[in-house]
Amino acid sequence: VVENETQAAIVRSLCRAGVPLSRQRLGSELRLGRNTLGAELRRLAELGLVEEGDAEPSNGGRPSRRVRIPRDAGLIAALDIGGSSIDVAVTTLTSEVIAAASAPSLLADGPETVLSRAYTLVDELLDEHGLGADAIRAVGVGVPGPVWEQAGDTFSPPAPSRWDGYPIRAAVAERFSTPTFVDNDANVMAIGEHLRGAGRGVDDFLFVKLGMGIGAGIVSGGRLVRGAVGGAGELGHVVVEPGSDVVCPCGNAGCLQAFVGGPGLARAAEAAADDGSSPELRAIREQKQAPLEPADLAAAATAADPAALAIVRAAGRRFGSALAATVSLLNPALIVLGGGIVGLGDTFLAEIRTTVYRQSLPLATRNLPIVRTELGAGVGVIGASAAAAQHALFSVPTYDRTSA
Amino acid sequence: VVENETQAAIVRSLCRAGVPLSRQRLGSELRLGRNTLGAELRRLAELGLVEEGDAEPSNGGRPSRRVRIPRDAGLIAALDIGGSSIDVAVTTLTSEVIAAASAPSLLADGPETVLSRAYTLVDELLDEHGLGADAIRAVGVGVPGPVWEQAGDTFSPPAPSRWDGYPIRAAVAERFSTPTFVDNDANVMAIGEHLRGAGRGVDDFLFVKLGMGIGAGIVSGGRLVRGAVGGAGELGHVVVEPGSDVVCPCGNAGCLQAFVGGPGLARAAEAAADDGSSPELRAIREQKQAPLEPADLAAAATAADPAALAIVRAAGRRFGSALAATVSLLNPALIVLGGGIVGLGDTFLAEIRTTVYRQSLPLATRNLPIVRTELGAGVGVIGASAAAAQHALFSVPTYDRTSA
Repeated sequence: VVENETQAAIVRSLCRAGVPLSRQRLGSELRLGRNTLGAELRRLAELGLVEEGDAEPSNGGRPSRRVRIPRDAGLIAALDIGGSSIDVAVTTLTSEVIAAASAPSLLADGPETVLSRAYTLVDELLDEHGLGADAIRAVGVGVPGPVWEQAGDTFSPPAPSRWDGYPIRAAVAERFSTPTFVDNDANVMAIGEHLRGAGRGVDDFLFVKLGMGIGAGIVSGGRLVRGAVGGAGELGHVVVEPGSDVVCPCGNAGCLQAFVGGPGLARAAEAAADDGSSPELRAIREQKQAPLEPADLAAAATAADPAALAIVRAAGRRFGSALAATVSLLNPALIVLGGGIVGLGDTFLAEIRTTVYRQSLPLATRNLPIVRTELGAGVGVIGASAAAAQHALFSVPTYDRTSA
Repeated sequence: VVENETQAAIVRSLCRAGVPLSRQRLGSELRLGRNTLGAELRRLAELGLVEEGDAEPSNGGRPSRRVRIPRDAGLIAALDIGGSSIDVAVTTLTSEVIAAASAPSLLADGPETVLSRAYTLVDELLDEHGLGADAIRAVGVGVPGPVWEQAGDTFSPPAPSRWDGYPIRAAVAERFSTPTFVDNDANVMAIGEHLRGAGRGVDDFLFVKLGMGIGAGIVSGGRLVRGAVGGAGELGHVVVEPGSDVVCPCGNAGCLQAFVGGPGLARAAEAAADDGSSPELRAIREQKQAPLEPADLAAAATAADPAALAIVRAAGRRFGSALAATVSLLNPALIVLGGGIVGLGDTFLAEIRTTVYRQSLPLATRNLPIVRTELGAGVGVIGASAAAAQHALFSVPTYDRTSA
């Protein structure tokens, strides 16, 4: 795609920034002289990868013209594969979402089925928007579990399944014939938040995804903490009740995820509807004629149903407690929460904050904002797109994928 | 000390290795041509920092002469400041311990008192061995709590005290008039274990110190995870019993340290002696006419005293549970345990291993040795010495202290 590492570095910087950058800024960031930078920019313009933007507002000296990535320089397909759904998007090279779609899909259906659904979604998006498949220059993928780079980017979800050790990057790269980046979804979201969201300029932070499962993307010193076999950040499988009889799909008992993940919360809501402790949840279930979901719990809590509120508060405390342990271990400067369960609302968030502030070292919480993702539900695809641009498309073989 | 970054890199490599290295190895490691390397080695020899060693065993080609750091190139003073004792050592530049001493000392006595005791210990060691203070070329210090580099290497222990925010590096550097490195003791021990112990060649591992307090040095991708304000690794302050009335010096209730740290274990031993459940501990206390310590618990457990064994097993389970959570979060390839409490023995270690293997994700424990430090009680001073050589003595201002 590019001809040398200097060109790759220039394009990566522009993708990272997502906004036009002045030549001056690019030159100082990449330690390139004016002439070298100028020559490589000319070549990149011929390749259609950069174009002149507007002039930077002058501060007295000669105005520096800004350069940017043209919107038609190419597209990235971003796939966020979850436990019960797939989100896909087609984005610009700077991770601006052009089109997006979602579909329910159970991870447990296995690699062929799940990936072919994702491919269909991408194909449909391209069709709808009159875009050719050849415009896709890279693919970024987030998956709900450990991805082991040294084994060739294989995916092994915590629950035993046909995915275990599946060479996912190779499969996706072959389907699209493009550079492809695959990582754990929470890692990909942390990359997105670092480049475009609340984590901008923060080198030590934690992104926690609360959805069907619970996972963390750990950024330390500006780099992702990946672990020996890509298994870092598996917060959902921290055992919070060793003696519990609530078994987690991973095989252990008493995992955080079994209580605070989507299925655990739905189970608690069902129980409260069954035993009559929550008239609100019972009414919702009768009205929708379908099993309760976490969103129903949020609705009941908003309607001040005491049993629903109690479930939400207990979930916040339990999650907050595990998060507090994480804070004592990692001392992040910021915690960003994303994923559907964050929709449980302000009571949930308040309970999490209170618990973290109470159960962590004062030093570590003196200045520790706990916020919702700034990227909303799109954090997964934006992160996957940004990660693909940084670590797959414009890279040389020696790239360092640990950088967030 | 050295004249340029190339010389610094050469001496750092030799300190890191701790054994003579061939020119070939040095050249390829540092990407230096034969001529440049030769010139800098000659200059370093003039400075007394390297000397020729023996020739590398020939493998057919021209034998490459090995170079090493002369034993008289200078000394490092290493201080391991604990909650209730100080260990000091005088080492070679390659962290070989020449002389060592210890003394009881309460951290709570505050900076002036504790540091002046440490200085006295070093002075006495130098005197005893007929060494001049001017032979000390660098000082390395480990302290039991967070050290915040960006605030000028200030030390803020978890328990409020006169140390809070104390500019410890500046104080020690002024006393010895040498480059000085200060970090959290578990971090320093992790550096020592990485360079000289079980962590050699392992880029993702955890060093956990179990002593008066409990702290972890986290190495991820070959770098130390330090956290936003140096507070990473505070495993001892993970709250393991939220509703507990056991208050920790940090101010929170139910911290791991309050149960498994030295004082907590001593308290449990005393209780078992008091209520008669442990005849062995009562006998030991009567014999020594002093309050019980963790070592007495180990003795009673070795004598198969059921109550002592139960305390040791419960401590192992509790610690193992917190360690399992850490494994789920960080996915280390190795866990190394150090500190006095590890002396509780094999029952303790067996309980820790069982709990970690049971409560962590199978993926993360498939290949996860949990071992005792290879450096024994000296891990703190060896680590402090190695860290001083790497990060203070032979460095340029842009050194990256995150490298383990």
